[in-house]
Amino acid sequence: MNNYSSKLLEEAVNELSRLPGIGRKSALRLALHLLKQDPQQVDNFGNSIIRMRNEILHCKICHNISDTDICEICANPKRDQSILCVVEDIRDVMAIENTSQFLGLYHILGGIISPMDGIGPQDLNIQSLVDRVKEGGIKEVIMALSTTIEGDTTNFYIYKQLKEFDIQITTIARGISIGDEIEYADEVTLGRSILNRLPYQSNV
Amino acid sequence: MNNYSSKLLEEAVNELSRLPGIGRKSALRLALHLLKQDPQQVDNFGNSIIRMRNEILHCKICHNISDTDICEICANPKRDQSILCVVEDIRDVMAIENTSQFLGLYHILGGIISPMDGIGPQDLNIQSLVDRVKEGGIKEVIMALSTTIEGDTTNFYIYKQLKEFDIQITTIARGISIGDEIEYADEVTLGRSILNRLPYQSNV
Repeated sequence: MNNYSSKLLEEAVNELSRLPGIGRKSALRLALHLLKQDPQQVDNFGNSIIRMRNEILHCKICHNISDTDICEICANPKRDQSILCVVEDIRDVMAIENTSQFLGLYHILGGIISPMDGIGPQDLNIQSLVDRVKEGGIKEVIMALSTTIEGDTTNFYIYKQLKEFDIQITTIARGISIGDEIEYADEVTLGRSILNRLPYQSNV
Repeated sequence: MNNYSSKLLEEAVNELSRLPGIGRKSALRLALHLLKQDPQQVDNFGNSIIRMRNEILHCKICHNISDTDICEICANPKRDQSILCVVEDIRDVMAIENTSQFLGLYHILGGIISPMDGIGPQDLNIQSLVDRVKEGGIKEVIMALSTTIEGDTTNFYIYKQLKEFDIQITTIARGISIGDEIEYADEVTLGRSILNRLPYQSNV
């Protein structure tokens, strides 16, 4: 499939096929679908993505995606400012928020330590986590990373950075089967794993 | 998954999840992927789709997607102007062009007759096909529609419209298994089915 009758179509297919999990045949199918839509709708489609990329902010406190400098969760005075939940990315925040079991604040690492992918501690929001704890007022840090080797490594690295402070470091209960990703866990299991969190025990 | 921390993100996810075959979880994954890209790249992504929708034309002769009023195939003097290949949509044109077995012109119906989906002959580019044949100069019309009930119905309908003219009406050889879609056929089978085309025989 490479004789596109239109450069405009070919360019759109090229761009769509850069998305993860979308090959050239799927990209062509999507492009032809978009061609059948109302031009106004396609404008909205393209512009909503461009606007998102250009205007979205990251919360200066927890690094959550936000439309403002400080995200709604960090700005909410009803949330417990003394408990931090450390997660890999914003999908984990959404999954935990959906359980309604956690009323503290978050800290989004933006990934986990993964030497295979060239991601080291300096690529993640770990220093700002240490700074938050150093500032005081935090009693507990809950580690809610995926139960993979990389997640365990990251847990251990952060534990070493935080153990000098007078705080409790816990991990969510491993009710979620080892190897499963947090974002795909069912809400009941995930909610319970936050209620049943345990003192941190290194298994690296 | 419905507590988006950003309206901008939520809107982008809403738009992405309108694409066929993309649910809300996949849409979120795509949106987060786009957020990690260079803003210039995301601009190109969105604008290439908007530009495609707004600027693309359909060839006035064969209804192929084109950047000009007359598509490259219709405008090519080396193509055999006396043979028309009738297809459902432009993906079929691309599949047939890939075989390099066909040097005539195309006629793109823009769909097939499907009462279940409310698509009748008047919704397709059938009258313009009859007009092309009426103008003269065409010796043969090759029907290359999918071998489904809808495809057979469309074949039969077009056959009835064209049988009064002094032309040969053929169908591509059914080397492609019944029920399979033309666009997914392998190039060798598809190429051979064009070489081995047979006089039209109604099986409705």
